[in-house]
Amino acid sequence: MRKGYQNPDRVVEHELQEVEFSPDSGKDKHVDEEEEEEEESVEKIFESREVPSWTKQLTLRAFVVSFVLSILFSFIVMKLNLTTGIIPSLNVSAGLLGFFFLKTWTKMLHKSGYLKQPFTRQENTVIQTCVVASSGIAFSGGFGTYLFGMSERIAKQSGDVARGVKNPSLGWIIGFLFVVSFLGLFSVVPLRKIMVIDFKLTYPSGTATAHLINSFHTPQGAKLAKKQVRVLGKFFSFSFLWSFFQWFFTGGENCGFSNFPTFGLKAYQYKFYFDFSATYVGVGMICPYIINISVLLGGILSWGIMWPLIETKKGDWFPADVETSSMHGLQAYKVFIAVAIILGDGLYNFCKVLSRTLSGLFVQLRGSSSRSTPSFSRRSFTEDPHASPQTPMESYDDQRRTRFFLKDQIPTWFAVGGYITISAASTAILPHMFHQLRWYYILVIYICAPVLAFCNAYGAGLTDWSLASTYGKLAIFTIGAWAGSEHGGMLAGLAACGVMMNIVSTASDLTQDFKTGYLTLSSPKSMFVSQVIGTAMGCVVSPCVFWLFYKAFDDLGIPNSEYPAPFATVYRSMAKLGVEGVASLPRECLVLCYAFFSVAILVNIVKDSLPSKFGRFVPLPMAMAIPFFLGPYFAIDMCVGSLILFVWERVDAGKAEAFGTAVASGLICGDGIWSFPSSVLAIAGVNPPVCMKFLSAATNSRVDSFLNRS
Amino acid sequence: MRKGYQNPDRVVEHELQEVEFSPDSGKDKHVDEEEEEEEESVEKIFESREVPSWTKQLTLRAFVVSFVLSILFSFIVMKLNLTTGIIPSLNVSAGLLGFFFLKTWTKMLHKSGYLKQPFTRQENTVIQTCVVASSGIAFSGGFGTYLFGMSERIAKQSGDVARGVKNPSLGWIIGFLFVVSFLGLFSVVPLRKIMVIDFKLTYPSGTATAHLINSFHTPQGAKLAKKQVRVLGKFFSFSFLWSFFQWFFTGGENCGFSNFPTFGLKAYQYKFYFDFSATYVGVGMICPYIINISVLLGGILSWGIMWPLIETKKGDWFPADVETSSMHGLQAYKVFIAVAIILGDGLYNFCKVLSRTLSGLFVQLRGSSSRSTPSFSRRSFTEDPHASPQTPMESYDDQRRTRFFLKDQIPTWFAVGGYITISAASTAILPHMFHQLRWYYILVIYICAPVLAFCNAYGAGLTDWSLASTYGKLAIFTIGAWAGSEHGGMLAGLAACGVMMNIVSTASDLTQDFKTGYLTLSSPKSMFVSQVIGTAMGCVVSPCVFWLFYKAFDDLGIPNSEYPAPFATVYRSMAKLGVEGVASLPRECLVLCYAFFSVAILVNIVKDSLPSKFGRFVPLPMAMAIPFFLGPYFAIDMCVGSLILFVWERVDAGKAEAFGTAVASGLICGDGIWSFPSSVLAIAGVNPPVCMKFLSAATNSRVDSFLNRS
Repeated sequence: MRKGYQNPDRVVEHELQEVEFSPDSGKDKHVDEEEEEEEESVEKIFESREVPSWTKQLTLRAFVVSFVLSILFSFIVMKLNLTTGIIPSLNVSAGLLGFFFLKTWTKMLHKSGYLKQPFTRQENTVIQTCVVASSGIAFSGGFGTYLFGMSERIAKQSGDVARGVKNPSLGWIIGFLFVVSFLGLFSVVPLRKIMVIDFKLTYPSGTATAHLINSFHTPQGAKLAKKQVRVLGKFFSFSFLWSFFQWFFTGGENCGFSNFPTFGLKAYQYKFYFDFSATYVGVGMICPYIINISVLLGGILSWGIMWPLIETKKGDWFPADVETSSMHGLQAYKVFIAVAIILGDGLYNFCKVLSRTLSGLFVQLRGSSSRSTPSFSRRSFTEDPHASPQTPMESYDDQRRTRFFLKDQIPTWFAVGGYITISAASTAILPHMFHQLRWYYILVIYICAPVLAFCNAYGAGLTDWSLASTYGKLAIFTIGAWAGSEHGGMLAGLAACGVMMNIVSTASDLTQDFKTGYLTLSSPKSMFVSQVIGTAMGCVVSPCVFWLFYKAFDDLGIPNSEYPAPFATVYRSMAKLGVEGVASLPRECLVLCYAFFSVAILVNIVKDSLPSKFGRFVPLPMAMAIPFFLGPYFAIDMCVGSLILFVWERVDAGKAEAFGTAVASGLICGDGIWSFPSSVLAIAGVNPPVCMKFLSAATNSRVDSFLNRS
Repeated sequence: MRKGYQNPDRVVEHELQEVEFSPDSGKDKHVDEEEEEEEESVEKIFESREVPSWTKQLTLRAFVVSFVLSILFSFIVMKLNLTTGIIPSLNVSAGLLGFFFLKTWTKMLHKSGYLKQPFTRQENTVIQTCVVASSGIAFSGGFGTYLFGMSERIAKQSGDVARGVKNPSLGWIIGFLFVVSFLGLFSVVPLRKIMVIDFKLTYPSGTATAHLINSFHTPQGAKLAKKQVRVLGKFFSFSFLWSFFQWFFTGGENCGFSNFPTFGLKAYQYKFYFDFSATYVGVGMICPYIINISVLLGGILSWGIMWPLIETKKGDWFPADVETSSMHGLQAYKVFIAVAIILGDGLYNFCKVLSRTLSGLFVQLRGSSSRSTPSFSRRSFTEDPHASPQTPMESYDDQRRTRFFLKDQIPTWFAVGGYITISAASTAILPHMFHQLRWYYILVIYICAPVLAFCNAYGAGLTDWSLASTYGKLAIFTIGAWAGSEHGGMLAGLAACGVMMNIVSTASDLTQDFKTGYLTLSSPKSMFVSQVIGTAMGCVVSPCVFWLFYKAFDDLGIPNSEYPAPFATVYRSMAKLGVEGVASLPRECLVLCYAFFSVAILVNIVKDSLPSKFGRFVPLPMAMAIPFFLGPYFAIDMCVGSLILFVWERVDAGKAEAFGTAVASGLICGDGIWSFPSSVLAIAGVNPPVCMKFLSAATNSRVDSFLNRS
């Protein structure tokens, strides 16, 4: 159950999510195979059930449910985007909720006698695909990263408003998303047969999703799913009510439970506290232990050791008279060291995945004539004995699935035509939105994009690792440098990042969905249509949700506020680095950046070269970098989540396995959806009535005497 | 398990505790009989085990364990005394902990080979008796009632310092307790055979305790007890750590979780909030539902309706310019209406129990020649069909128990001699302590006391209802009026209350213990010695514990503080009423007092005249009166406890039954024992570092601007 669908639109977070699989990859693969073995009989179970035609798979009710869920998940993802940028796999909850809604719907219709069509797993796959595509835009839209990094608010913090700003506005964001989000879909459609049937790529997340959906539609699976939904609902309510309760006590800055100095005021000053966020406790339950521990270690290293030490150099390394949030002070160390680690980790993984993609492709193409090596290890250099589980003989399941997969074809001319039409339109429109982004930059991106999209889709199929954010960063640096500082290179870089990321991420996303569709006998056509509709939904819903947050919370993007949007600053700083070089950094900051850049690569090398039983204990540099900027408070939440799961697994492993993700999803969803009423309240000008304040005893006596005086 | 031992030393609370039995008396009695039936075989189970001689029942280790536990329980009882005055039956926890400590001890000795004597139920009874006697002093010592009511601090609040004060001091308190606490023991010793064997009085609490101890010493009972101890330990730790955690955030007035405006600031102003007190959640789990609901109803009636209404009469009914804590303002209504209800309820129950005592005695004496009516219903007028469970034939158990009970005799000359000696000494010493208390007042008390002590012991045996606090109030009024206002009648009344209460409560206590001893084959001699030693312990331990609180918390006894000691004010106000009459009350207060006095009696009449299935839903006036003065916050805690138990009973009735009291005891003990380190910290001058403050949004912005300015 802990294996969630991998949404490749997700940028920085995604690199975290991807890692979710690598520490237990040996085990995961093992499970996969077991499931694969069990699966031998899956299609036999479903044999008696008719597979609806692709037009019948695309029901209106499915899209209504998808729309509701996509709003729900857009809120959740947006909240996560804007608080820490860590987004766990929400796939299980999407699957569960989709199943629950449509099951309830069909049951009600059945009772009233209006049910025309039973609820099939193909329909379930359509919902899943649509919701993930839609809520994926909430991430790849860059509301917490490149897009919001263009805004004046972030620019002011970085102190580079003059380098160009573009404030968010509902109009151009929706337009931008529509122009860039569909290209990825068309770029990989012609290659689906090669990826799924010829290469038999694993797509672990897509496979896991398919298993989940298949299991829901067996009688036993439906029973378990029902129980899981009940657990999810319970924790959803709890988490929602808890957030509601917390809200009453946040009537002012630094008020409420989210500023609870659990370990004392001194620790609170360095952001060591438990902030009672149900979301991040849930995130901690979904993320593997190593991620949580890495985040905590990163927090201790940065806020526990490095920042206090660097603070003592005040007046020496950096001017003493700058504000704490100024990019000329300590803040610069926090941001740029984090950027260095993220870039180091990204570079390493880019090279790793690319080399494996190329070598894999080479093996594939060389051996494509014989069927004896249809698949291969996704981590070949770990020399896993379970690396080649496929048997040369085609099983009943494979045969049946291949037959259904090949039945409905999307013509190649349609895909190529679509790509050319949209890219032409996009090249014409985008320079009007971002006048810094020349049409020839875009053209170059669109010429390179299909290759990169293929690489990413292939790499994700092999390793479950989408490099979308890395390709985005590549665009920031190359286009930024090409445009140059004088011609608004920063903005051009950030916009190019958006264009690039959207293409490569949707490409791997759709291929993933084709795999899911293959395993659930869903038609490629219905998958494609569902993804198109989902993307269109996302292009409207996500900007609206973002707009709600933006209008409701005036301090969105400000450090230490409720929604600091940390990666907006990180992305802008990267763009600055690309355009300006390293001259503006404070003293010793560059040295530290080089050091951490190297350490990030080194740690990855060590992690991968050790046997996996030791390697899995090596922390992940990417995860460690996040608290550098934000502080370790959310790491403490996540570790609490880990601890709960750990204890639960010790006490009752079966229940923890079956319901852990449901509990976590409930916690995340309840808290996430509370952000809707909370932002509505904020827009309506309803302020929380009470401030729960934490003062030192000394300050308190001053405040008391002040209050008694007046 | 929910039937606890009844400690009759407890004054006002006691009347609450007593009620614990009356609402379910039908059910309780039923259970009693079932246990009685099971019990037929109890002594057969224990037949093979040798009953140690009375000197062997009194082991050193038993008294060491008793001493440790009596310190523990003195802290808990003192904390309860000084916060609300509601003290639940802690008997089960005392029994469990006593069993646990001595079992561990003997096991360790057994392993090391030094064990000379096995742990017997007689020894367990000795511990139980000793601990209850000792911690009983923490209550009957009047640290939360008459004794602390003499202090200047309380007098200042009532605005009658001139009427006489006597500040607490370790010396005279210990002396006073030693002089008055032992008389009760001697007054009923000669009558034990009549009470226990001839009259076969029920003593429900004593019987329940005996059943508990007997069950501990069967193999199955020991296993359950072990589990219960583990649960108790878990919740003890949780509760202790929670209190410890809370402490950090109480660095100032009105700071911390105990001032959490759970339902908003407006509700907080009228004391409607959940104060996160583990103690009162536990208390709520032990007290029957009707008590908790009564307390909540009382809170809603007073703080939700009456006080806000009376507040609108400010300037009309009472002067507008007095402080809120002044006895000339709203405070007078709060205190005197509560007093009126307590007196009304007390008077009704006094008459009820006295009439039943007398009628019971009459039946007993008339029928004492024949053995056909050895026992009778303890609630004869409810016409319970289970009223006379005893069979005319003596069972094996009865025979064996009677034989052991009569084996060890305490000579009558010893009892009479002891009583005369101690009362002579007491009459000589007390006037030196309280010069307002003339020697002839004391003599009159000591002449009446044995009769009253007998009445109380007999009444408690019939109804489980100790009227100690009512006798105490009687003394306040009679002695107070006799002495008169000019001659320090207030102090004389309060001191007389202490003398009277101590005698009558220990009398019923000891008789209760004789019953327990009878049922566990413990010798009356060992019971008596244990009670003497326990009382002596209590006379030293309780004042020391009180002294610790008194020295540690400067605001002890101040309304709205952590330890408001509400009944100290109530008792002083009663004394004032006795001495001064009703002239000093503000306008309409007297009318309201009369009304509530009558309503209290009326509600009791209605409750008793309805059939018990309806009557048990009628709230208890006594319980309703407590929040009148204190506010309903602790009622909310108690209702949360009720709710937890209610849900638990619905989910798993068996576990709730077996472990409910253990959980509650754990919560109460952990929080109670935290008061030891907390007072030590306070004395050492260690202040909590943080203040968790709750401000309205408006005040908060003022405070923020003040803090930013400075």
